Amino acid sequence: MHTAILIVQCKDNKGIVAAVSQFLYENNGNILAVDQYIDEELGDFFMRAEWELETFAIEKDSILEEFKKNVGFKYEMQYSLSFNFPKPKMALFVSKLSHCLFDILSRYYSGQFNVEIPLVISNHPDLEPVVKAFGIPYYHLPVTKENKFTQEKRQLELMKEHQVDFVVLARYMQILSGDFINNFPNNIINIHHSFLPAFVGAKPYHAAYKRGVKIIGATAHYVTEELDAGPIIEQDVARVRHHNTIDELVQIGQDVEKVVLSKAIKYHLARKIQVVGNRTIIFN
Amino acid sequence: MHTAILIVQCKDNKGIVAAVSQFLYENNGNILAVDQYIDEELGDFFMRAEWELETFAIEKDSILEEFKKNVGFKYEMQYSLSFNFPKPKMALFVSKLSHCLFDILSRYYSGQFNVEIPLVISNHPDLEPVVKAFGIPYYHLPVTKENKFTQEKRQLELMKEHQVDFVVLARYMQILSGDFINNFPNNIINIHHSFLPAFVGAKPYHAAYKRGVKIIGATAHYVTEELDAGPIIEQDVARVRHHNTIDELVQIGQDVEKVVLSKAIKYHLARKIQVVGNRTIIFN
Amino acid sequence: MHTAILIVQCKDNKGIVAAVSQFLYENNGNILAVDQYIDEELGDFFMRAEWELETFAIEKDSILEEFKKNVGFKYEMQYSLSFNFPKPKMALFVSKLSHCLFDILSRYYSGQFNVEIPLVISNHPDLEPVVKAFGIPYYHLPVTKENKFTQEKRQLELMKEHQVDFVVLARYMQILSGDFINNFPNNIINIHHSFLPAFVGAKPYHAAYKRGVKIIGATAHYVTEELDAGPIIEQDVARVRHHNTIDELVQIGQDVEKVVLSKAIKYHLARKIQVVGNRTIIFN
Amino acid sequence: MHTAILIVQCKDNKGIVAAVSQFLYENNGNILAVDQYIDEELGDFFMRAEWELETFAIEKDSILEEFKKNVGFKYEMQYSLSFNFPKPKMALFVSKLSHCLFDILSRYYSGQFNVEIPLVISNHPDLEPVVKAFGIPYYHLPVTKENKFTQEKRQLELMKEHQVDFVVLARYMQILSGDFINNFPNNIINIHHSFLPAFVGAKPYHAAYKRGVKIIGATAHYVTEELDAGPIIEQDVARVRHHNTIDELVQIGQDVEKVVLSKAIKYHLARKIQVVGNRTIIFN
Repeated sequence: MHTAILIVQCKDNKGIVAAVSQFLYENNGNILAVDQYIDEELGDFFMRAEWELETFAIEKDSILEEFKKNVGFKYEMQYSLSFNFPKPKMALFVSKLSHCLFDILSRYYSGQFNVEIPLVISNHPDLEPVVKAFGIPYYHLPVTKENKFTQEKRQLELMKEHQVDFVVLARYMQILSGDFINNFPNNIINIHHSFLPAFVGAKPYHAAYKRGVKIIGATAHYVTEELDAGPIIEQDVARVRHHNTIDELVQIGQDVEKVVLSKAIKYHLARKIQVVGNRTIIFN
Repeated sequence: MHTAILIVQCKDNKGIVAAVSQFLYENNGNILAVDQYIDEELGDFFMRAEWELETFAIEKDSILEEFKKNVGFKYEMQYSLSFNFPKPKMALFVSKLSHCLFDILSRYYSGQFNVEIPLVISNHPDLEPVVKAFGIPYYHLPVTKENKFTQEKRQLELMKEHQVDFVVLARYMQILSGDFINNFPNNIINIHHSFLPAFVGAKPYHAAYKRGVKIIGATAHYVTEELDAGPIIEQDVARVRHHNTIDELVQIGQDVEKVVLSKAIKYHLARKIQVVGNRTIIFN
Repeated sequence: MHTAILIVQCKDNKGIVAAVSQFLYENNGNILAVDQYIDEELGDFFMRAEWELETFAIEKDSILEEFKKNVGFKYEMQYSLSFNFPKPKMALFVSKLSHCLFDILSRYYSGQFNVEIPLVISNHPDLEPVVKAFGIPYYHLPVTKENKFTQEKRQLELMKEHQVDFVVLARYMQILSGDFINNFPNNIINIHHSFLPAFVGAKPYHAAYKRGVKIIGATAHYVTEELDAGPIIEQDVARVRHHNTIDELVQIGQDVEKVVLSKAIKYHLARKIQVVGNRTIIFN
Repeated sequence: MHTAILIVQCKDNKGIVAAVSQFLYENNGNILAVDQYIDEELGDFFMRAEWELETFAIEKDSILEEFKKNVGFKYEMQYSLSFNFPKPKMALFVSKLSHCLFDILSRYYSGQFNVEIPLVISNHPDLEPVVKAFGIPYYHLPVTKENKFTQEKRQLELMKEHQVDFVVLARYMQILSGDFINNFPNNIINIHHSFLPAFVGAKPYHAAYKRGVKIIGATAHYVTEELDAGPIIEQDVARVRHHNTIDELVQIGQDVEKVVLSKAIKYHLARKIQVVGNRTIIFN
C-alpha cells in the first residue's frame, strides 16, 4: 500500500490537530496512524500522520504546496513529507566484525526491511564473501591517516553514483570527517557498543570491565561531528556478572548491538524519527 | 490543574480525529494529550484526549451532552468523560503479605498517587498496625466458606458507605464472587504473581519452580468472573536461576509484583486504560 | 586449549567437594572452572569441573575409570565426562523462516560456536541458497502425514552418516516422533516462540495477541515426547504494546527467539547444562 | 540456622579448592554453599564457603586461627570470616525522599532482611514520622557548609554508640567526608540515580533527559572518596520514551533505585560481596 508520511513541528497552539486532521479529511485521506507530542519545555508541538495515497484527492507532487497554503503557513510550521516508495537506498559501512552486517542482511533477505542496499563499503577485505553472497557490490577502500581525505571523496562519489539516501555504520571502525557527515545530516546511523553517554570512544567493553559495571549496553544514534554524541535513536542493555571476561562482554554485547541497530534502521525507514536538538522523538 | 479526559470508541471512519479535535478547538480547549489507536482487526477507532478545563467554553456538566450532539451522535460513538478531580476513592483489600500494601501506601504518602484511600479491608488482622500508622481505617473481615456471602455483603456496604470508586486487591488471597465483581466492572485491579496466562491459580511460584522456568513474572489485570483471566493491564518479569529456591522466587517476584501493581493503579487513576474485549489499550 | 569437563551428581554428603577437588589436584589438574549446586528439595549434589588436559597426569581415555575407582564409586555418583575436542557435530532442522538459521550460521561463520555443522535438513526448499552459501549440504525432505515415518528414517540415516552429536530445531515446524527423539535424549534443542508454559503449541503469537499480554517471549528447551514440555534451557522476553499487530509481535519475537536459541546452543556446546527431572541446571 | 561464612583470596594455585574443602570436611562442616572465581587477568583465586556451625568440630572463636594454620598460611591467603548472627546493625541516612526508606523499612518489617536498624539519621526533619512509626530512633542533624565537620563528628559518635556495622545512604543528599568514609571501608552503600558511570554527580535525571537517553538506571555502590566512583554492587535500568518528562523519569527511576538498593543490602548482609580493586565479585 502506498502511503504518505507528514511530520510537522511548530509552536504549540490551539487548533493544530484540528487543522491538520481537517486538511487530511477534506482531501479524502484515510489516516493509518497519527501521533502527537507536545514538548512542554520547548513549547513545541510535533505530529506525524500517515495516510493512504490511493484515495487522496491531492496529487503526490502537490501535497506539500497545498499543505503549506492551507495549514503550514498559518501555524508557521516546519514540515517534511515523505512516501513509503520507492524504497530508500541504504549504504552499509563495515570493518571486520560481521554480527551487525549479518543481522541486517538477514532482515533484508527476509523482506523485513523496506530498503535497497546498493553497496557495502569497507576499509577491510574480510567481509567481501558475505556481501557477495547476497549479490551486493562490495567496495574495499582501505583508510589510513594519509589517504583518508581521498577515500572519503571516493566514498562520497559512490554515494552519489548509487543515489544513496542514508548510511549505516555497522561497526565501521573509522571516524568520518565533518565534511562527510554534513552530506547526510540525520542520515548516518551508527551503533556504539556501550550505553551512551557511558564509555564514549574506543574499547568500551574494556572500559566497562574495568569499571565493574553489572550491565552493558549498546546505542544507535545519528552521527554528528562530536564523537558518539549525536541524537540517540535506540538503546538496550544486557546483564553481566563478575566472572564474565572481556571476550564474553564482547559476545554478550554483540547480541544487543545488532538488535538495537536493526531497530534504529526500522524506525528510520518508517520515518518514525524526528530529531529535536540532540534528542529524538520516536513516533512508535 | 483541572483537566477533563474523554475516551471515545467507534467504527473507524474518515474525519473522526478532525471532528473531535475541532470540537475541542472551537470550545477553546487547550489539549494536553491526545492519543489514537486504530484496531485494524476490529475496524475500531479509539481516542483519548485530555484538556484544561479552566479555559474551556463549555460547563463541566454540559460537556458530555454537547459532545454527543456535535460529534458523538454522528459517528455512533461510545464515550466516557472523566475529570482529574475530585480524587477517586480506592479501597485496598489485603491478606497477610505486606509488600504491595507498603508500596502503595508509600506512594500515597509521597503524593505520587492522585487518590484517596478511605479504607483497607482484610481477612486477617496482621496488617492493621501498618494501615493504622497511615491513619487509614482497617476493617478485619475474616472469610470462611460459610460466611463468605455475608462478608461480601458487608464489604459492599463499606464500599458504598465510603463511596469507593475502585478496588485494588493487593495480594488479597480470597476469590471474589461474580456478584461482587459485577458491582465494579473494570474497576477491580488484581495482582497475580505470575506472567499470565502461565501459572493461573494458586501457588504460581511453586509451579514456576517445578516447571523450571528461567524467568518469573507478575501480572496486574482487571478482575472478571473467570479466575486470572481478565484484561491484562501491566506485566513485568525477573530472571531467576536454577539455584533459586521457591522462597527466593517469592522474594524476587514480590519486587516485580509491587511495581507492576502500582503502575496499573497509576494508569487507572490517569484514565489511561480502555478495555476492549479482553485486551487493554494503554494510552501512554 | 584442550580441556576435560566432568559433571557429577549424587546424594548430598559431606566431603564430596573435597574428594573431587583432591582427585584433580593429585593428578595435577589445573582447574579452570568449578561450580556446585545443592538441590535441597531432592537432597542432591551437582558439580561441574573443567580443567586443562595438557598437564593432567591421567590419560584422556583412563580418566573416567580412575575417577570411578577413586571417587565416583564411594559416593555412588552418576557422572559424565566430555572434552572440548573434537568439535561436536550439530544438525540443523529448518522450515521456511530464516532468522534463527541466519543467526546460527553467522556465529558459526565468525567462530563464536565451537561446532561443526555437517548438514541442514528442511521440509521446504526455500532456505537452500542460504545454506549453500555457507558451504553446508542441504537436504530437502518434505514431510506429509503419509511419508513422515519414511522421512524420519531417512533423517536418522543422515544423522548416523554425518555422525551428528545433537540436533537443533531452528523453527522446524514439524513434530518429531518419540522414536526420533529417543535417539537423541537431551540432545535435541528446540526454540518455541512463547515464554513457556504459556502458549504451548501452534501460533503462540496469535494466542498472545488474543490474550492481550504486555510481554512476549521465547523458550529454548530440550525436546521430549510431550509437546513443548521438555526441560527449559533459556528464556527471554520483549515488551509489546496494544498497538502492535500480530505481524509486529512476530518480528519483535523473532529477535528474542534467535538470541535465546543461540544462547542455548552455546551452553550445550560448553557442557554447561545438566538436566534434572524436567529442570535444567545451567553452570554459568 | 547458625552459619559461618569464609571468603578467601590468594594467587591462583593448584589444590586450593581441595585444601579449603578438605579443611571443612575434616572438621565435619556441612557445606551449604561454595563458590569460586578465578580472575584470569589478576591471576587471583576467590572462594566463598558457607557451612553450618552446629555440627562443626572447631569452636567459633578458633576457626580463624585453625584455618590460618592449616590452609591460609600455606597459600598466603587473605581471608575474612563472618557469621550470620548476631544480626548486623545498619544505620540509614536519608534526606527528604521516602521511596528507598519505605522500601527498606517494609522489608525490615516483613523479616526479609537479617538486620537491626538502631537509628536513622537525616539532615531534614521530614521523614521523622515514618521512621518513628517503625519504632526506630530518628536523629535530625541539619548539615551546612559551616557545621559539616561538627555534624559528622556527631554522626560518628552515634555510629559508635549504636555499634553500627554498616551505613546505607538511602538517597542522602550530602557528600560524606573522606574521614567519615574511612571509618567504614566497604561498609557504606550508596544508591546513585543513574547507570554509572553515566551521569555522575547532581541531577542525573535532568542530565539523562537532556542527553535524550532511551534507558535510565540506578546504581548501588560502596562509597569511596571519589564521588560516585566506588565499586558497583548492583545496577538496573528502565525504558523511557521521548514523551516522558523529567518528573516522570524521576518516578520511573525511583522504582529502579529502591529495588537496586535493597538488593545490594541483601548481598551485603549475606556476605556475598567481595571487593577487588574497584570491582565487586557477587557470589550469587
